[in-house]
Amino acid sequence: MHNLTKMKILKPAHEVYESFVDPVKIGNFWFSSSSARWEPGKTITLKYEEYDALGEIDILEIDPNKKIVFSWGANGEGHKVTMTFNEVEPSTTIIEVLEEGFEAQDLEGIGQLLDNKEGWVFMLTCLKGYLECGMNQLRTGLVK
Amino acid sequence: MHNLTKMKILKPAHEVYESFVDPVKIGNFWFSSSSARWEPGKTITLKYEEYDALGEIDILEIDPNKKIVFSWGANGEGHKVTMTFNEVEPSTTIIEVLEEGFEAQDLEGIGQLLDNKEGWVFMLTCLKGYLECGMNQLRTGLVK
Repeated sequence: MHNLTKMKILKPAHEVYESFVDPVKIGNFWFSSSSARWEPGKTITLKYEEYDALGEIDILEIDPNKKIVFSWGANGEGHKVTMTFNEVEPSTTIIEVLEEGFEAQDLEGIGQLLDNKEGWVFMLTCLKGYLECGMNQLRTGLVK
Repeated sequence: MHNLTKMKILKPAHEVYESFVDPVKIGNFWFSSSSARWEPGKTITLKYEEYDALGEIDILEIDPNKKIVFSWGANGEGHKVTMTFNEVEPSTTIIEVLEEGFEAQDLEGIGQLLDNKEGWVFMLTCLKGYLECGMNQLRTGLVK
């Protein structure tokens, strides 16, 4: 199974895309830090200081301002995530996040899907708040 | 199965609670309108003008500033939703939303759970943006 989440953001695709690949920006709406600019073939370390968490992603594919594909975990053993940036009209972008690789055959698997959905919806809403209104304080609001 | 979602909001419980029960406020972060102040025994009509949608809820229980229990649909045939408002420190409230009554025995049921999770996370993040920053433009961002 997969998780697909879509958000409309009143900004050009370039700005939405740069929010992820530019390590200066990500701390305003998602992880507290990103180790380098996202480029194909790189392994990026993402930190979530507030939750004392750290993870790595492998950047598999980049189409500037249009698409980012990465996998969670170094060495590509994790789920694949595809972000697409569709500028449906000037200064309006629909970002889609597709995460693939779930098995929802038992309660544990369904729980993982729900946690994953929670994370993407939350991040994308925080991104909208940051890009449209300059708000960077939403990102630590979700309580587990 | 159930869906449980929690959000920390840097406001007193009274303000978070009033955002739901006061029909003047709900349009800033969730439905576009609510037909009356939420009180026990009332059936409230909720409209989502942007999606041309309309629904009713039955208010089952109210503990002012602490708890709201309602069911979707008039006559109580729908899922039960319990919202609790826990002021963990002055001007900091954790709101919990619990929706019960899902069956996740097939792909359709799992899809309903995911849609439901998406809706609650989105609404609660919009509520945080509205109460903490006065932003009321997030609520129409989610794309189905």
